[in-house]
Amino acid sequence: MIPKALIFDVFGTCVDWRSSVAGLVEKHLPTCDGFAFADAWRGEYQPAMKRIRDGGRGYVALDDLHLENLDRVLRHFDIQVDDRPALNTAWEKLDPWPDVVPGLMAIKDKAIIAPCSNGSIALMTRLARYAKLPWDCILGAEIAQDYKPKPAVYLASCAALRLEPAQVMMVAAHNDDLHAARAAGLMTAFVARPKEHGPDQTTDLTPDANWDIVAQDFLDLAAQI
Amino acid sequence: MIPKALIFDVFGTCVDWRSSVAGLVEKHLPTCDGFAFADAWRGEYQPAMKRIRDGGRGYVALDDLHLENLDRVLRHFDIQVDDRPALNTAWEKLDPWPDVVPGLMAIKDKAIIAPCSNGSIALMTRLARYAKLPWDCILGAEIAQDYKPKPAVYLASCAALRLEPAQVMMVAAHNDDLHAARAAGLMTAFVARPKEHGPDQTTDLTPDANWDIVAQDFLDLAAQI
Repeated sequence: MIPKALIFDVFGTCVDWRSSVAGLVEKHLPTCDGFAFADAWRGEYQPAMKRIRDGGRGYVALDDLHLENLDRVLRHFDIQVDDRPALNTAWEKLDPWPDVVPGLMAIKDKAIIAPCSNGSIALMTRLARYAKLPWDCILGAEIAQDYKPKPAVYLASCAALRLEPAQVMMVAAHNDDLHAARAAGLMTAFVARPKEHGPDQTTDLTPDANWDIVAQDFLDLAAQI
Repeated sequence: MIPKALIFDVFGTCVDWRSSVAGLVEKHLPTCDGFAFADAWRGEYQPAMKRIRDGGRGYVALDDLHLENLDRVLRHFDIQVDDRPALNTAWEKLDPWPDVVPGLMAIKDKAIIAPCSNGSIALMTRLARYAKLPWDCILGAEIAQDYKPKPAVYLASCAALRLEPAQVMMVAAHNDDLHAARAAGLMTAFVARPKEHGPDQTTDLTPDANWDIVAQDFLDLAAQI
């Protein structure tokens, strides 16, 4: 069945956050190891969202969590920064993998495309402008006021399009994201991004379930739907 | 001051709903006066939203209100239709005024652009695909779970972009919309659409206040910001 819409994980699946953040950090902080800093910053990502997912904190946009996490990482690296909000906009300037823009254009000819990310509407909007991601609309965490992999995020994204989950395909480079999407009733597509975490990545190199589609990249995904 | 984002009324300001709906109605119902039907359908628009704005009914997406209103108009015209939902999708297939797509492209080079319409995310997404409106994201009533001209709709649209109202410009062909946006703290731009209601239109032919910008069309608006 051809999906009426494809919704996409963004960090890692569409954009190379690690190299991009590392490069921007080294511009701001020339003495710093950009990749170590990027890994430490991203390392605070899941713990920060966990408290919200568990109900211990109301919904707070990822922009604010990124800034809180930045403070933690700066303390850890014992670095002072004058303009923390400026550095925090690194997450709005992430380069897409080379297949992403042409792949999304080809997929958009066949179906609605939108991010289903934990990034806010503001963050996803600015990132789309930077990386030229041709989304039809912005869905994801902020629509649901909760964070993936909670089912509400996938379901709210389908509902915002007035589609049933079975009419929508979740696309991700992370098996966990797809397990949660499938449990919510969506179709699933896996696209490996073996360099997301650098040259020594060991996770998500292959699909760990019989996803509806396994594609080499977004152009291959466009050809398969 | 240059706005960081421009948010747009859509029905009438960006698209010629009247001619478009009339044409689609006449395709479905060849014996019907398409313009009379379109005017009657649109005539139910404000009353349907009023009960929600007044708190007498929870938020219901405009797609559903359009379908309820269609039933009312079909009874009034004493017409039977087999596939009412198919006819209801007329509101997803509205032609833009000729200046809109090139104007939005030029404005998008300078600032974020998004609809701030009473249409749902689903409706605005499908309309954008049909009319090739190059929005960066979809804002408006559904984000706020309320209907313009309630201030919540303008304020929620600014908040979703993490911008202050004073950094955002509302663009509309309707003075009422701009009065409400200004009261909420936004900048304002008026673009007259003297044929929105047909050749004998008497309303909104000219600005009725000192809006921040008064433009001939969207290309002129792009030049003025």
